[in-house]
Amino acid sequence: MIENAYYSQDVHGPYELHDIGNLELEEGGTIRGCKLAYGTYGALNAARDNAILIPTWYSGTHKIMEQVYIGQGRALDPDKYFIVAINQIGSGLSSSPHNTPAPAGMANFPHVRIGDDVRAQHKLVTEKFGIEQLALVVGGSMGAQQTYEWAVRYPDMVKRAAPIAGTARNTIHDFLLAETLVDAITSDPGFNKGFYKSAEDVREGLLRHAKLWAVVGWGSAFFEAGRHKLLGFSSMDDFITNFMFAYFGVMDPNDLLCMAWKWQRGDVSRHTGGDLRAALGRIKAKTFVMPMSTDLLFPPADCQAEWRLIPDAEFRPVETLDGHLALFGADPAAMGQLDKNLTELLAAKV
Amino acid sequence: MIENAYYSQDVHGPYELHDIGNLELEEGGTIRGCKLAYGTYGALNAARDNAILIPTWYSGTHKIMEQVYIGQGRALDPDKYFIVAINQIGSGLSSSPHNTPAPAGMANFPHVRIGDDVRAQHKLVTEKFGIEQLALVVGGSMGAQQTYEWAVRYPDMVKRAAPIAGTARNTIHDFLLAETLVDAITSDPGFNKGFYKSAEDVREGLLRHAKLWAVVGWGSAFFEAGRHKLLGFSSMDDFITNFMFAYFGVMDPNDLLCMAWKWQRGDVSRHTGGDLRAALGRIKAKTFVMPMSTDLLFPPADCQAEWRLIPDAEFRPVETLDGHLALFGADPAAMGQLDKNLTELLAAKV
Repeated sequence: MIENAYYSQDVHGPYELHDIGNLELEEGGTIRGCKLAYGTYGALNAARDNAILIPTWYSGTHKIMEQVYIGQGRALDPDKYFIVAINQIGSGLSSSPHNTPAPAGMANFPHVRIGDDVRAQHKLVTEKFGIEQLALVVGGSMGAQQTYEWAVRYPDMVKRAAPIAGTARNTIHDFLLAETLVDAITSDPGFNKGFYKSAEDVREGLLRHAKLWAVVGWGSAFFEAGRHKLLGFSSMDDFITNFMFAYFGVMDPNDLLCMAWKWQRGDVSRHTGGDLRAALGRIKAKTFVMPMSTDLLFPPADCQAEWRLIPDAEFRPVETLDGHLALFGADPAAMGQLDKNLTELLAAKV
Repeated sequence: MIENAYYSQDVHGPYELHDIGNLELEEGGTIRGCKLAYGTYGALNAARDNAILIPTWYSGTHKIMEQVYIGQGRALDPDKYFIVAINQIGSGLSSSPHNTPAPAGMANFPHVRIGDDVRAQHKLVTEKFGIEQLALVVGGSMGAQQTYEWAVRYPDMVKRAAPIAGTARNTIHDFLLAETLVDAITSDPGFNKGFYKSAEDVREGLLRHAKLWAVVGWGSAFFEAGRHKLLGFSSMDDFITNFMFAYFGVMDPNDLLCMAWKWQRGDVSRHTGGDLRAALGRIKAKTFVMPMSTDLLFPPADCQAEWRLIPDAEFRPVETLDGHLALFGADPAAMGQLDKNLTELLAAKV
């Protein structure tokens, strides 16, 4: 375990913790007393059919979903829905390398897969809330990976699915892209094979990781349009230091690596012996596939190829200059498109 | 100086070396006895008006231009033209960190700018060959940066210009992208601030650099289409090891960094106090701007924005799945488009 004030009720609260017991992982490890951190918004109705589940993305927590995606009058309206935003394993709030006691923490934290998260989340929503159907599962990036996993693994439970800026089976290009993020961190001598004394020791690696995210997360169009300046940053250097590094630099390196490993290997076709068509064919949820038009991690073409394999799904790319990180919500027009699509999806009869 | 068998007549020959004397650099340094390595193809005609100049790109030499772009029946036909392909400073064949004696070599090699290269090349072609006009300057990537610099710096000498997959003024996004390539190398403890004993000591950094190039150089569409398999590689791992690392791993780290520094700062508007419109407005060459349609380093939109500022220029994007590295020539359709465009450009009355 390692102290990290970033992962706290002060920064991310309020959230609840639920202990789902021991979680045996697909790769063979076990997380003992696995805890999921989650936030809820709104109330479950008597029919228990107004629940929305939101899994989180790489580096994100339920808090950004609360701040950017959930709100009265929005598609994800707590006046209408009971919304459960669950932090993924490795997020730093749920069980993660940095908050797991020795010897199982830090670099000894076991490998986790998207499927492990979804089983853990299933346990939480069924046992804790008695939810038997989900009106919607919606998530961005790794949240989209989990959304797809939910829809394939529990096809009768998931009524609607909205994977945003993510894929059901990760491409080899995106695997490699994530690997360069991993390399940026692990190549720092201060990383010490994952047994650093403080995340501060990995400062240079975290800075390289933040720079890489700036390159692939936004893309050229974002900067050429001066979007970083509109967000209040005077130059690229200022943006790197006071936005990208300010954001990523406070996080725990092992936590990021736990998520990256999982991200790289997201693949619903594990359910069907590698047959992606068969896996996506299982989906019963009404599904809107929503890539970001300028996404370099999960390009629209990659998302479109999967959309073709999902029964009765709709392909709704979101036009934006913000690339993958349009997910952060800095482009109001993109958020408007997402809200419109989600409203329509939630209104769809299923 | 450091031994490196890659930069040799065995691998890149035949080529000539020309000593242009001391080259005083824009940043204040001097390369003493600056040598340019070049290959020539065809013969200069009596009117001395059939010369084509080709500057090289990051990591490339005249050899790939010879093998992939020049040939009988092609646009760049040595039966018609006198083609001079000049290796940029830092390329490893011309004066470069690795082949410059102490104390001026290795990490002490001075900073070079695109403008320095173009002045050096101008000296070579005028003094050595008595060339006073260039029928065409054509280059890809950093070769495009030099092409633009030629057209802006010597507008009366350059009759036609074909910048392929490159910009006249580097974007801040591409600056940062190149910075991540730099970081990949310099973060290797074996780099030793540029005073390694052997490039082998920087193996891990060079591997990270090669992986990053695979991510940004090709892009997702290339891999999803299985283009790497068509090129004879069984998997991404195989491709990384036996193509990307095989290619970059033999190069000298300081040489790559010399070129990267230059690449990051390519900017013809240095001639006009930062006014890009004024700089590009100087161009008298008939210019075809030819980005690669899937380029992540120099996206078509960035090239198009510059094209609008060039008098009487044409915008001719090349359709390909190969991203920036379509420059390598592995996509015959892309090469066909380039050849067609170059043939038309060379036929244009100027």
